[in-house]
Amino acid sequence: MMSKPLILVTNDDGISAKGIEVLIRTVQKFGDVVVVAPDKAQSGMGHAITVNHPLRISRSKLFNDIEAYSTNGTPVDCVKLGIYEVLNKKPDLLVSGINHGANFSTNVLYSGTMSAAVEGAMENIPSIGFSLCDFSADADFSGAQQIVEEVIQLSLRNPFPKHVCLNVNIPSIPKEELKGIQFCKQAAAFWDDRFERRQDPFGHDYYWMTGNFREIAVEKDTDLFFIKSGYATIVPTQFDMTAHTVINDLKNWK
Amino acid sequence: MMSKPLILVTNDDGISAKGIEVLIRTVQKFGDVVVVAPDKAQSGMGHAITVNHPLRISRSKLFNDIEAYSTNGTPVDCVKLGIYEVLNKKPDLLVSGINHGANFSTNVLYSGTMSAAVEGAMENIPSIGFSLCDFSADADFSGAQQIVEEVIQLSLRNPFPKHVCLNVNIPSIPKEELKGIQFCKQAAAFWDDRFERRQDPFGHDYYWMTGNFREIAVEKDTDLFFIKSGYATIVPTQFDMTAHTVINDLKNWK
Repeated sequence: MMSKPLILVTNDDGISAKGIEVLIRTVQKFGDVVVVAPDKAQSGMGHAITVNHPLRISRSKLFNDIEAYSTNGTPVDCVKLGIYEVLNKKPDLLVSGINHGANFSTNVLYSGTMSAAVEGAMENIPSIGFSLCDFSADADFSGAQQIVEEVIQLSLRNPFPKHVCLNVNIPSIPKEELKGIQFCKQAAAFWDDRFERRQDPFGHDYYWMTGNFREIAVEKDTDLFFIKSGYATIVPTQFDMTAHTVINDLKNWK
Repeated sequence: MMSKPLILVTNDDGISAKGIEVLIRTVQKFGDVVVVAPDKAQSGMGHAITVNHPLRISRSKLFNDIEAYSTNGTPVDCVKLGIYEVLNKKPDLLVSGINHGANFSTNVLYSGTMSAAVEGAMENIPSIGFSLCDFSADADFSGAQQIVEEVIQLSLRNPFPKHVCLNVNIPSIPKEELKGIQFCKQAAAFWDDRFERRQDPFGHDYYWMTGNFREIAVEKDTDLFFIKSGYATIVPTQFDMTAHTVINDLKNWK
């Protein structure tokens, strides 16, 4: 790429999260940055888009040297608004995150961070979602920052696969203990949900979703395995959800 | 299955939509039905879950002969609440819909109807999402009803694939013109989005997302192709989004 790449930045924790600030400051070294991000936390929004109420977009003053916008939309809305309303063209690179919390395994389905990257892949824009395996608002992003730099460099230097995005997860360990990066597949695991029932001051029940993450099959070449072993992981991620191998079995249904 | 199967019903158009009523009345013939559905339209919610505010659930009086609950949650929340709070066990079958609008091709990612079915697949429950390719609230569901019956019969009679759900789309044509059912793959297509900008009475801009659906690759063995040809389509759908074929290419990145 000869000229400076145009980089669109979004996230799902909202424009004031620490993670997006770290991401902006890191990718700024590599190109011209425009930010379109949710005005509030949109965790767990998956691939949601806004169809039942109108979208608003306004210039944010959070980053004085950066063209940044906040919206009332979801992360996927932010990507669509970024391309079709703010930039009026496709960026050279789309980055999402850095998410406060892991998005390995089937979390990719629930994650607004990754859904923004998947939306970029649908548009055939090189797109990367970054997540740090630490939910705290003031998490230490120094290891993550190093991985972001490395992955952006790799992505700009190599042919990016078409209609595929990268799901990058970084373990929550001190920078010095990071063992490197592994390209691998999504682990087969899921949330074993429970609901915590409480009563409001008026005597009515309400529920908070809680749960543990449980592996269906423990395999060695998965993101979950490598994260536990101290590696950052990159899962190339696509949007064909067809279970190709069972189509022929189903054709025999009587 | 010897005893009557327990069937959990949900949707994304909300518990008062015509489509879920048709679905309930159709599946009622095959088993014991429990309904957990959103209290309002949740179209385009994808695989969103509710993490930032509490969930509420209340008994609905809409169907006097059926145990039905409405929630303020998303379709995926409904599945989780249905299994872990209402039934306290997994149902034998989970059905979602009948959606007012197509969910073929990449719509599977945006669709609350299909995300509920995918959540069922994660729980290894035989799960089916039904969608009629007609967005109108008073759509004619007679052809859809016939397909639902046929697919439920097939699903109860044959071994259901593990950790896979079915994405069933029914074209919006008169019942007599339906040519049959085709098992096939998800078409490579996406929304070519545009935003319609308007001004509110106070002079501020707001946006409605609009757009056309466009094929990336026109292929004959896809849901989009068969729907256009007058068939109902069944795409077996799974939740591994890994782009397996490119992992090795990426390992060569320098």
